[in-house]
Amino acid sequence: MRISELSRTSGVPLATVKFYLREGLLAPGRPTSATQAEYDDAHVRRLRLVRALVETGGLALASVRAVLDSLDAGPQANLKTIGTVHDALPPAVRRDREPVRARAVLATLGWHVDPDASALHRLEAALEALRSVGLTPDPDHLRTYAEAALSVARADVAAVPDASTADVVEFVVTGTMLYEPLLLALRRMAQQHLFVTGPGAAGRTG
Amino acid sequence: MRISELSRTSGVPLATVKFYLREGLLAPGRPTSATQAEYDDAHVRRLRLVRALVETGGLALASVRAVLDSLDAGPQANLKTIGTVHDALPPAVRRDREPVRARAVLATLGWHVDPDASALHRLEAALEALRSVGLTPDPDHLRTYAEAALSVARADVAAVPDASTADVVEFVVTGTMLYEPLLLALRRMAQQHLFVTGPGAAGRTG
Repeated sequence: MRISELSRTSGVPLATVKFYLREGLLAPGRPTSATQAEYDDAHVRRLRLVRALVETGGLALASVRAVLDSLDAGPQANLKTIGTVHDALPPAVRRDREPVRARAVLATLGWHVDPDASALHRLEAALEALRSVGLTPDPDHLRTYAEAALSVARADVAAVPDASTADVVEFVVTGTMLYEPLLLALRRMAQQHLFVTGPGAAGRTG
Repeated sequence: MRISELSRTSGVPLATVKFYLREGLLAPGRPTSATQAEYDDAHVRRLRLVRALVETGGLALASVRAVLDSLDAGPQANLKTIGTVHDALPPAVRRDREPVRARAVLATLGWHVDPDASALHRLEAALEALRSVGLTPDPDHLRTYAEAALSVARADVAAVPDASTADVVEFVVTGTMLYEPLLLALRRMAQQHLFVTGPGAAGRTG
């Protein structure tokens, strides 16, 4: 397809498509003349992914490039890809100290996570903040949170529509960013519900 | 106790205690002379609460006042108090449209939540964002999220150390703000774990 059709099919404005081409975020098409090139479905998919990273994920171009690089490194790079995507997503985390508490939690859970993942630093910051106000969570409270997190993550992973790495990455970006406020809103609603009905109440979900 | 001891006991600087008194966030002590007053444990507790609202919750003084007002309205005001606290906490939500989708979800769950709660508007925004990128969650996915939210909220409510309304409010502020990043960090860690080990993996929590 020509670049105008690529723009129409992907829903990305022509000027933006040209910008991504110039920035190297989209591979050049196959030249068919001095001024024209031919694009295919792979271009449409990549364009859709770049747009999700930029618009939904709010990623800077350098971060988009890092995600695409780890994506192009091959299917074995899946974990690295997911980690790279998570690292590139907001919020930024401080890495100025070793996530000692978070690693201890991770060891208890037996989860396989990169020991320098940004999520681990974020968990460390949360644990430190709770400790500082005298609210260090007891192991059962923490385990309940970990089980809930694993349960929603399992549903997230099961919802990935296709096994291709690009789809997984696109899902992680949109799913991570857009399901987070959903989860937090539901938690606040559940707190309000339990304050009215008492901690034993289940609604229709328990 | 004198105001200096009130400051020492609560850990709140003297200048800040005086500021809260001037702003009416702390009730005056019982006058013992023209320049001195006597304070008691209720003042210590209130001071601790105001500090949690301001420092941990990041609330503006007007929001602190709203929380204290609903707190002083009596024990029957518990739900309203929780709602007021949630409404005062970041992030601010847009209320420019009816939360139609969120109310439908609420009806399915059978939860008791104020139909104009900020959490409901936040859920609406999240559902709308997902719809806009073609990722409307299916009912099972949503139910998994609601069950996880109810499970952590139940642990939160069970962890409230004392039944007094002030303690509950203080807990909701610190617990809501400080457990949110903890939950999100654990979810990202769980996603990474499942991408390595496959969706059936449980670690030691499943």
